[in-house]
Amino acid sequence: MSFREDGHRAVDWAADYLERVGDLPVLAQVKPGDIRAKLPASPPEEAEPFAAVLRDLDEILLPGVTHWQHPRFFAYFAASAAEPGILAEMLAATLNSVGFLWRTAPASTELELLVCNWVAQLIGLPDGWHGHIEDTASTSTLAALIAARHTTGRNVVVCSEHAHSAADKAARMLGMELRKMPSDDAFRMRVDELRLEDVAAVVATVGTTSTASVDPVPAIAERCAASGTWLHVDAAYAGSAMVCPELRWAFEGVERADSLVVNAHKWMFTPMDCSLLWTSRSAEFRNAFSLVPEFLRTSDEGEVNLSEYGPVLGRRFRSLKLWAVLRCYGAEGLRARIRESVRLAELFEGWVRDEPGWELCAQRHFSLVCFRREGSDEENEAILERVNASGEIFISHTRLNGRYVLRLAIGNDRTTEYDVRRAWDALRDAG
Amino acid sequence: MSFREDGHRAVDWAADYLERVGDLPVLAQVKPGDIRAKLPASPPEEAEPFAAVLRDLDEILLPGVTHWQHPRFFAYFAASAAEPGILAEMLAATLNSVGFLWRTAPASTELELLVCNWVAQLIGLPDGWHGHIEDTASTSTLAALIAARHTTGRNVVVCSEHAHSAADKAARMLGMELRKMPSDDAFRMRVDELRLEDVAAVVATVGTTSTASVDPVPAIAERCAASGTWLHVDAAYAGSAMVCPELRWAFEGVERADSLVVNAHKWMFTPMDCSLLWTSRSAEFRNAFSLVPEFLRTSDEGEVNLSEYGPVLGRRFRSLKLWAVLRCYGAEGLRARIRESVRLAELFEGWVRDEPGWELCAQRHFSLVCFRREGSDEENEAILERVNASGEIFISHTRLNGRYVLRLAIGNDRTTEYDVRRAWDALRDAG
Repeated sequence: MSFREDGHRAVDWAADYLERVGDLPVLAQVKPGDIRAKLPASPPEEAEPFAAVLRDLDEILLPGVTHWQHPRFFAYFAASAAEPGILAEMLAATLNSVGFLWRTAPASTELELLVCNWVAQLIGLPDGWHGHIEDTASTSTLAALIAARHTTGRNVVVCSEHAHSAADKAARMLGMELRKMPSDDAFRMRVDELRLEDVAAVVATVGTTSTASVDPVPAIAERCAASGTWLHVDAAYAGSAMVCPELRWAFEGVERADSLVVNAHKWMFTPMDCSLLWTSRSAEFRNAFSLVPEFLRTSDEGEVNLSEYGPVLGRRFRSLKLWAVLRCYGAEGLRARIRESVRLAELFEGWVRDEPGWELCAQRHFSLVCFRREGSDEENEAILERVNASGEIFISHTRLNGRYVLRLAIGNDRTTEYDVRRAWDALRDAG
Repeated sequence: MSFREDGHRAVDWAADYLERVGDLPVLAQVKPGDIRAKLPASPPEEAEPFAAVLRDLDEILLPGVTHWQHPRFFAYFAASAAEPGILAEMLAATLNSVGFLWRTAPASTELELLVCNWVAQLIGLPDGWHGHIEDTASTSTLAALIAARHTTGRNVVVCSEHAHSAADKAARMLGMELRKMPSDDAFRMRVDELRLEDVAAVVATVGTTSTASVDPVPAIAERCAASGTWLHVDAAYAGSAMVCPELRWAFEGVERADSLVVNAHKWMFTPMDCSLLWTSRSAEFRNAFSLVPEFLRTSDEGEVNLSEYGPVLGRRFRSLKLWAVLRCYGAEGLRARIRESVRLAELFEGWVRDEPGWELCAQRHFSLVCFRREGSDEENEAILERVNASGEIFISHTRLNGRYVLRLAIGNDRTTEYDVRRAWDALRDAG
């Protein structure tokens, strides 16, 4: 078989999958070890045809896939891959550019800078910020803290108790001290007790993991400016929503940030992984990361080497998939999709509000609804396990004010009102 | 247009590209800014067809691509993407699994553990090591140093002056002190002056970037064991060659390492990015990285969550492409390809040795030849610039004993004896 023929079959497999994904159980209905037990313990000695890979993908792996592309995937935050992005990912693998110097991947380097600038325009960032792509927000936040420590010479990180665990983990990896600030009743960082004299960085969140709450960035920025503290804003989920002017209240103060992360692989429909990291202080970022050994010295002039702006040396041609999505959806298409997600979340919120025996647990922001059945934590946990085990929907949970709370997050391009209605029916049946 | 039709066109584009890549200039013949200047400064308001993306890829981006898939790409270390891996990358993007908990991606999690075990068998590692996939060796080495510091409570890293800059960069990012050991005449770490009492980790290299030299791992392992120092082995390039028993001398002592990195995206023909990181101390690794906030708690029992073994929370389904390559090449196919790369390097080495006016600058290891024209550094640099600018071949350089040295590294699956001969002709003409 030729690459061309194998490729056409692979595309047909992908097209068929995307057509039928809504009929599959959302959460994989397997137990730990089930998949591995069906695969050979050792690699084959002789070459096999690609058709064997496709067959085993279907027969062995697929039952072990939790379908992030499923229209009834409502857990965590959605990460769905738009079709142009999927094809662009294949094209990127075909070119297999390895960008560490400009000269090793000029198109990849320049397109990465360009698409980050495109998104900066779409979400209303100030002119002149440097943007590049990291794999995930874990790395983007890690990089920001490294730049903050390098720039300030301090070793303390501050975030709210509702900040993403990536901040805790980054601080621990770097050997930095982490101070968690309490939140107010609306799950926003309390700033009245912020003391920042010895603090390298504050991680403020626009769209927290638990409730999508928005920290008071203007007040935090004010304090950071006064104490020379780096302000990193984590808008991994909610940042994409800033394409809609009516949601841009949430970015008030972000123009004063030193760095900002938005995951295009979440609500910008770009395949994993594609975490956008901007900084308004590109010189300080470069100071923190630039290291040019002999084998990387070149005679190129005026070039940007993206390896000088982040932790890794080599990078994939990630911008290609984001470019494909931005072009094939258009700004208009992005706004329409964000608005539809928000509309569906509002609808669901209304159903919960109106239903006796159920309660909302936090103000809805963007497309995330936090709710529970009136009753015990155990009862709510049982509801979650029951609906997830059914394969009908997949939701996740959090804990607010000590109570177990269910989360329904909308953001998959394939999700329709019908799917949200089915989710609500499944939840009521389970409760 | 439908995804299916767009997909078939994308596959045809990829197939055509791979057929003609050898006819394109290896190094992109553009200047910094050329590509970006041809692209719109702002994103489109309205959606465009995918065909427009394909068209601009051809007309605008392609001239800015340095062709890592080109048979005469001899710079750095080769990173070529095998065809089954390219298609698997599209399938991974189609599924778009995000693996942070086992339940979010059971097949991805279990296949990742399995293929790392397959490769461990192929390259002769001891039983029972935990292996997973990071993006690049930069991250793998960073992760190893984090685990080393967490485990030993010490803050010093030791490596040779020929270690990869990733070790310098990781130490700097983590705020660890780096001590560089001198090398011997064969560019191997000198161990006679190793003092490790306060050292968290030694980074030993099997296949250095400059010359592919091999540090004396058995002696280093001995010292590390005596002082309770973590031994991390960087075999990013040469590790893949261990599929050939006759080359496995280079892994002597590696069975005593605490961690090991091998980049499958280098000489194992897997598309970027796919860096394999093993540890013989999985409990210590997990202690260093595990952090389970409320929203990630599940009722799954006996599962492995790969986010507990490395820096990032979310991961792509990277194992799919490596699995596809291992199956479609087979152990036999991998060995044959490695042997052919080595044979071609030996051939080139012989031509240099026999040619008056040219000299070899280091013992050849694996598929890397270090050489120069007898003459000044400037003359050699001019040769490099001339052959690279011609688009005929792409080579890179290093500096050994203060002298500018040319490097020819073989490892692209498409490279034939004809290509190596053309490289030698181009170099002689330029010299």
